[in-house]
Amino acid sequence: MQVYLNGTFLDQDKALVSVSDRGFVFGDGVYEVTRVVEGKFFMEKEHLVRLDEGLNGLKIDLDSDTKKQIPEISRELIKRNGQADDEASVYLQITRGAVWPRTHTFPDPPVKPTLYLSSGKFSPHTDLHQSGVDTIKVPDVRWARCNLKTINLLPNTLAKQQAIDAGVNSAVMVRDGVITESPNANIFGVRDGELYTYPASNYILSGITRSAVTTIAKNLGIPLHFNPIREDELYTFDELFFSGTTTDIQPINRVDGKVIGSGKPGAIVKSIQKAYSEMLHSL
Amino acid sequence: MQVYLNGTFLDQDKALVSVSDRGFVFGDGVYEVTRVVEGKFFMEKEHLVRLDEGLNGLKIDLDSDTKKQIPEISRELIKRNGQADDEASVYLQITRGAVWPRTHTFPDPPVKPTLYLSSGKFSPHTDLHQSGVDTIKVPDVRWARCNLKTINLLPNTLAKQQAIDAGVNSAVMVRDGVITESPNANIFGVRDGELYTYPASNYILSGITRSAVTTIAKNLGIPLHFNPIREDELYTFDELFFSGTTTDIQPINRVDGKVIGSGKPGAIVKSIQKAYSEMLHSL
Repeated sequence: MQVYLNGTFLDQDKALVSVSDRGFVFGDGVYEVTRVVEGKFFMEKEHLVRLDEGLNGLKIDLDSDTKKQIPEISRELIKRNGQADDEASVYLQITRGAVWPRTHTFPDPPVKPTLYLSSGKFSPHTDLHQSGVDTIKVPDVRWARCNLKTINLLPNTLAKQQAIDAGVNSAVMVRDGVITESPNANIFGVRDGELYTYPASNYILSGITRSAVTTIAKNLGIPLHFNPIREDELYTFDELFFSGTTTDIQPINRVDGKVIGSGKPGAIVKSIQKAYSEMLHSL
Repeated sequence: MQVYLNGTFLDQDKALVSVSDRGFVFGDGVYEVTRVVEGKFFMEKEHLVRLDEGLNGLKIDLDSDTKKQIPEISRELIKRNGQADDEASVYLQITRGAVWPRTHTFPDPPVKPTLYLSSGKFSPHTDLHQSGVDTIKVPDVRWARCNLKTINLLPNTLAKQQAIDAGVNSAVMVRDGVITESPNANIFGVRDGELYTYPASNYILSGITRSAVTTIAKNLGIPLHFNPIREDELYTFDELFFSGTTTDIQPINRVDGKVIGSGKPGAIVKSIQKAYSEMLHSL
């Protein structure tokens, strides 16, 4: 498998960065994961806009020429990896670059940011989309800038692992009494035929798939409220589901062993799955 | 300058890690910085205990043989770098290791953690210890596990840079109306001859120098209250200072342009500096 690193395509196991890279010592960087469906990049523009927001948020100055090359690099990468007509996911990471010695302050003058891309064959989790998944609730212990898609992902990895250790698929994170996100997806609830999700804020990532769901809700005439779901009203919802780039639209059957609605994927989530699948394949 | 990486001493600019290292893609690791004074490691045991707490907190399993070698590796490193009889700081980082492809869940079976050490000649900031420093207040946006010394350090680097951009030395972070820490040091206040600092909790790092200050306070007969300093009472304090491994004991003259006490290092902080300097050199 080939990856791209700072201007060069090379074998994944030969792609190395300095121990002084601020990605390695501070988690000082941003990332994106983009879906490729039948060789076409899904909502690529939205990912690039969010990437820019992340770079601006961290004040990482990637030169505009390199930035413009990202779509081309991404396409060359999936071509080299034999995924050009296939389902794939493309991972992109930009860090503030390598600087010695290590200091908290930004390098002055700035150094060249590190640009890393990898791709993998992607198999949608069709079985989970059909069956739905079980989850646990965990405290959302993340920082207060969750709107930035940074590589400071320890709380996310710990929450996901906690779910796996509990024998379930994922976690529903709770901050200040309300449901925020999963470790790697947004969350929607359905009650009396209407949708609810956490409003765009510094406490959630503004997901690209979340944005697709808002479009779908509008198209299907499903009212959508940008109101957070309170922990104490969670089990009054008829349906609950995750949305995410690699998660797609994934129904949640149980939280902490207690069923949501019928405990099976409901009518609304199925209609959204169908519409989302059509979006994915309409490129 | 030589560094140590996974069993090998090598030139810093040749020390490379995989792009798949979880330190690089998730900030999934812990670190320590230890002071070396006249070739002797200061409070080394305390640093190793805290390192263990961090590894346990993240469930990173570093084999006990490697762990036992850390003091020896550290000494060999400063020797190779010509710092064996000098003032130095030793940086140590352990990540969960490199695994491909990237997934949030821990590698199963586990992979070998990455062990990285570097050292640098250290010059205490004597001028700042004598003059005191100016600071700004910034919101403490860190996660809720600040007691773990992890490399998820983005909020710390951003706060430090915000201070530098504001033309001051560092920042005083505020969470829920109380002073927690600086981006890289603990904070103490003095009022009516008594000391105040944030209690050990998940919202601050339990600093090694903070621990030294508690010992010093006891020895000097200065009452110490583990009570947080409220933002709204900050300017009623007579003295304010940082404590940290590379910060030492650093008086704070101003916060957001307003003086603390006389706006100059006070009698209590000077007595603590003197006692701390004696501790550093009594090894």
